[in-house]
Amino acid sequence: MSTSIACVALTEGPAGPIVRLLDQRLLPTQNVWLDLDDAESVAQAITDMVVRGAPAIGITAAYGLVVAMAGSAWPQGADHDDGSESARLAAWCTRFAATRPTAVNLFWAIERMRAVGAGLGALRSCAIAIHDEDRAFCDAMGAHGAALLPDAGGVLTHCNTGALATGGIGTALGVIRAAVDAGKALHVFADETRPYLQGARLTAWECVQDGIPATLISDNMAGWMMKKGKIAAAIVGSDRIARNGDVANKIGTYSVAVLCAHHGIPFYVAAPTSTIDLECPDGEQIPIEQRTPREVTHVGGWAPPELVPPLQIAPDGVGVENPAFDVVPAALVTAIITEQGVARAPYPEALAAMVAAAEAARRS
Amino acid sequence: MSTSIACVALTEGPAGPIVRLLDQRLLPTQNVWLDLDDAESVAQAITDMVVRGAPAIGITAAYGLVVAMAGSAWPQGADHDDGSESARLAAWCTRFAATRPTAVNLFWAIERMRAVGAGLGALRSCAIAIHDEDRAFCDAMGAHGAALLPDAGGVLTHCNTGALATGGIGTALGVIRAAVDAGKALHVFADETRPYLQGARLTAWECVQDGIPATLISDNMAGWMMKKGKIAAAIVGSDRIARNGDVANKIGTYSVAVLCAHHGIPFYVAAPTSTIDLECPDGEQIPIEQRTPREVTHVGGWAPPELVPPLQIAPDGVGVENPAFDVVPAALVTAIITEQGVARAPYPEALAAMVAAAEAARRS
Repeated sequence: MSTSIACVALTEGPAGPIVRLLDQRLLPTQNVWLDLDDAESVAQAITDMVVRGAPAIGITAAYGLVVAMAGSAWPQGADHDDGSESARLAAWCTRFAATRPTAVNLFWAIERMRAVGAGLGALRSCAIAIHDEDRAFCDAMGAHGAALLPDAGGVLTHCNTGALATGGIGTALGVIRAAVDAGKALHVFADETRPYLQGARLTAWECVQDGIPATLISDNMAGWMMKKGKIAAAIVGSDRIARNGDVANKIGTYSVAVLCAHHGIPFYVAAPTSTIDLECPDGEQIPIEQRTPREVTHVGGWAPPELVPPLQIAPDGVGVENPAFDVVPAALVTAIITEQGVARAPYPEALAAMVAAAEAARRS
Repeated sequence: MSTSIACVALTEGPAGPIVRLLDQRLLPTQNVWLDLDDAESVAQAITDMVVRGAPAIGITAAYGLVVAMAGSAWPQGADHDDGSESARLAAWCTRFAATRPTAVNLFWAIERMRAVGAGLGALRSCAIAIHDEDRAFCDAMGAHGAALLPDAGGVLTHCNTGALATGGIGTALGVIRAAVDAGKALHVFADETRPYLQGARLTAWECVQDGIPATLISDNMAGWMMKKGKIAAAIVGSDRIARNGDVANKIGTYSVAVLCAHHGIPFYVAAPTSTIDLECPDGEQIPIEQRTPREVTHVGGWAPPELVPPLQIAPDGVGVENPAFDVVPAALVTAIITEQGVARAPYPEALAAMVAAAEAARRS
């Protein structure tokens, strides 16, 4: 279970800690690392989507808080309160929490850092622990999930769920990596994943980097690849899993699941237990973010226009739907792979057991 | 049954006939007409995909032969043979037949023109008849098909099958136009149709031009739109229909049909009887063209790079599948709308009857 890729790291510069980020906006054509030695730049990099993927964002924010507290600056416009270091940490936590609106891992990582207090050593240890834990969770998902994948054949995946989205080998792509490392002769079919093209730009790039055989397809080719017998299994990540096993994930995942069901192909989900929301009874309760129409009417918006000039592909004045996510009903999900093991229907019991196991592991 | 759009016309210039073509490579952002007064430019425009869509290509070639024979030039490199006008017509027919490799309408239109001989008046009448007939077929499909669509609701379509692909209102999009003209409160959902984006660039543009309510979606959103109850019917065109009712059409059509079946949504095909190939027993016998990987790894290739700079969206070195078409099994096709009427399963009998009716109409 290995990959040559890391998207975020904490390193030591001449004047203190530095957050190294692979600028994912420039992939797949340019491989540029940013060394950020001030916390505001790290926060801005999260907002600008230099780094994306919920676990990777959480790790970056934690490292950003280390950089913040290694220096002496306050966030711009922050209330200096009593001027104490703990007030400064609180101000930076608030700053980092404002970088992206909906990433649960972000808030969770920030709260964990806030709880250890303003001591730099403790903060550094906590940030590294957050990263190490995510890496270990990826490895555990890989170990549990690799056994489910066939010994050979095509595996379809959607969006990016790899080393560019996490602190380790990834969730769904991590399972594929683990299976390949275990000697399975898999061939990745990567949906390009319009509109944001995470599959084309990021998953395909990861596969090329790691030498995993991979074929890029337009999203609308997935069904035909299944019909032609090229897909033996599909595996995706998840942004939120409801108590009943309904799975929210990147738009297009629902179509993949329906197509798998039609062709009798197993449809797997790989996600850490932190993705399971037992408070959420079913997928109907999961709010679906509508993103800007411009992602659909233009190509290239993943980067600032001066870096990647956007290309208009649709006429002015046309209506657009751009839901960021859709929801796969539990009935279409073959199994859910977590770091604690593999959950299968009936999901309410299986998922509750996974969450309980995770809580027990944390306590021990 | 009307549209404000025409993509090809024969007009009279000061020095003879002119082929007017809307440059579809520049849509949807620029509305540029080319007036071509020499036949070689018309042939090159077909190759360069200034005009696309099988019926529109056939009409353009017919008009191009009028322009050719109104002048006195021979195609470059042509064998002048006996130097007669009929040898010159034959040479131009050969030239136009070499413009695109697989468009059946192209060869059919050229043969029809060749058969009338080198007289300019007869050629002009034949070309106009080819155009008029296509327009009438579109209108007839519209009349037959409009009744099948619901009185209100969303209608999904894929690729471009409208006035930009034909000499009239279109095939599938023509049926939608006819239904809207008949007072049905339809809302088009246009799949963007990667990789070539005919849905985003052309279908969405036609809808905006004609004031048909339309929403553009990424291909991978179609299933979710169905799940959310936004799609009441789907209608697509076809490149070739086998005797058993299997339907070849733009890649992605198969996925749409499976998704429709899963949601209990009718899936209609609109195509003239010339698309029905009774010699072809089933879809397995339909060859599927693999197009260049560059269409998948880059966006913008529908136009010369100096007009639309291509944007690379995938890493060098990744494998690509790029089948231009897929095949919908007859079992997933609710009905096939032709200019002769509506065919339903069992398709072998129904399609043979449609073809027989078309032959009878031609003889009468």
